[in-house]
Amino acid sequence: MDIKTKLRGDYVQVDAVAWQPFPEAFSTGGIKWKLLHVSPEVGGWTAIFACPADSSFARHIHVGPGEYLLTKGKMEVRGGDQEGGSTASALGYGYEACNARHDQTSFPEDSEFYMTFLGPLQFIDEAGETLAVVGWEQAQVLWAQQTGQG
Amino acid sequence: MDIKTKLRGDYVQVDAVAWQPFPEAFSTGGIKWKLLHVSPEVGGWTAIFACPADSSFARHIHVGPGEYLLTKGKMEVRGGDQEGGSTASALGYGYEACNARHDQTSFPEDSEFYMTFLGPLQFIDEAGETLAVVGWEQAQVLWAQQTGQG
Amino acid sequence: MDIKTKLRGDYVQVDAVAWQPFPEAFSTGGIKWKLLHVSPEVGGWTAIFACPADSSFARHIHVGPGEYLLTKGKMEVRGGDQEGGSTASALGYGYEACNARHDQTSFPEDSEFYMTFLGPLQFIDEAGETLAVVGWEQAQVLWAQQTGQG
Amino acid sequence: MDIKTKLRGDYVQVDAVAWQPFPEAFSTGGIKWKLLHVSPEVGGWTAIFACPADSSFARHIHVGPGEYLLTKGKMEVRGGDQEGGSTASALGYGYEACNARHDQTSFPEDSEFYMTFLGPLQFIDEAGETLAVVGWEQAQVLWAQQTGQG
Repeated sequence: MDIKTKLRGDYVQVDAVAWQPFPEAFSTGGIKWKLLHVSPEVGGWTAIFACPADSSFARHIHVGPGEYLLTKGKMEVRGGDQEGGSTASALGYGYEACNARHDQTSFPEDSEFYMTFLGPLQFIDEAGETLAVVGWEQAQVLWAQQTGQG
Repeated sequence: MDIKTKLRGDYVQVDAVAWQPFPEAFSTGGIKWKLLHVSPEVGGWTAIFACPADSSFARHIHVGPGEYLLTKGKMEVRGGDQEGGSTASALGYGYEACNARHDQTSFPEDSEFYMTFLGPLQFIDEAGETLAVVGWEQAQVLWAQQTGQG
Repeated sequence: MDIKTKLRGDYVQVDAVAWQPFPEAFSTGGIKWKLLHVSPEVGGWTAIFACPADSSFARHIHVGPGEYLLTKGKMEVRGGDQEGGSTASALGYGYEACNARHDQTSFPEDSEFYMTFLGPLQFIDEAGETLAVVGWEQAQVLWAQQTGQG
Repeated sequence: MDIKTKLRGDYVQVDAVAWQPFPEAFSTGGIKWKLLHVSPEVGGWTAIFACPADSSFARHIHVGPGEYLLTKGKMEVRGGDQEGGSTASALGYGYEACNARHDQTSFPEDSEFYMTFLGPLQFIDEAGETLAVVGWEQAQVLWAQQTGQG
């Protein structure tokens, strides 16, 4: 058996990190992000997102659970309150369960949220066919490119 | 906040459960399986597989980590020892890391292994395009159909 | 095998929930908290803490990893920068690794942080002897009592 | 943010590893074990145990969930079938839930089982006071000493 060492902690001064564009393949309206942490052992990742009014994320399935803290603005999840989903307002906390399908996640006003993910997001088309599986590894590759750490 | 209850334990008398065919979309050579447990909160699942000589699993990525105990026979993972992977022989234990890609998992003799999975298997084609994402939910739907619990 | 259902999401309007005192057995200086979520399957829990100037948490070990977002003020973890730990300033993100020992976590000014925990906190004395193991179940019992949901 | 690398897989030829005594502080009757894997990020660990007739484990709480495959013999969990628990017979699979308390785990005949643990075992006295918290780190320290890898 391989002897393993304890992990050490990480710290990121969030407001000192520049926002980067979140890919247009997965969002519209100019969403930006900062990747804060990845957990390669179980495939976790943590990020903060800035979402201008009228921006949205493309249709996806949470392959594992995710938890968010909405620190600013409003987020309509699964269509929002009007369509059986949730409309979150800052300061709001949400738990999105494993296998939750989000056909529409949109921001009626300028918003920011912090989110911890276990496992990837599976972006899908309307029929449920997979377009991309984006997890800690893909997130980190993108972030490294965007910040010149590649 | 929703108040939650503790989970209770489960027990399965494994040898009293009949083998079911594992889908040919994901395997060749007559692999059979028994689903033993699913963990809906984090997307874990546990199964035991019976793999005849010359059977194999289709190309896949482990979206989360998996651990196996090979109780009978031989399993060639990631091409086997000859190609930089592992050749497991009973009694063998293996840890397949999050994001491990298994282009070829084959059984040169009649074999059985027990495996715990966190997250789904992402079956892919040679170019890496997703064919199917098979996790606890899809596994349970199949098992329920096969055993008349649907 | 028991057939299981998918979990559903939760939402908490954080600013509409009243602060409750965090137990003095585990903190000094008037720390308050709101429990936001528990995950009984893996023993995860999520809370937000308000920590007045000069408050602190008692010595503890993180039995699993934890991630925090410091939304206000300053937090000195593992003695702070001056003693080899971290001094977090809002807006700061921290990852505390599995088995991290925090002999001193203190707040030099009024602060707030949100934290997701996997597994319990093991409160210990100076010699490392266990005083209490406080996880999702104990957290939920306390919260239910404090909010009349018991 | 620290850029992290993917983990690699591990393999252990289980039958080529010598059994070591499991500590008498936590068991009676000559239980032996082999540690197969540790997962430092989330505090998981995996081991196989050989339990002679009339051996037993001391009273403990599973701080996270655990899954076992009983490959030989019989195991009485939580008092066995006669007292509302489970009596497992090879080949048997069991899921022990997060926070399960096992006042008595005993083996009426020579038995072996393989188990994956998330989080530590909290050994307790009859009144529920903590005697020891034994997780991946403590397990690995012991194993490294027993096998000369310290």
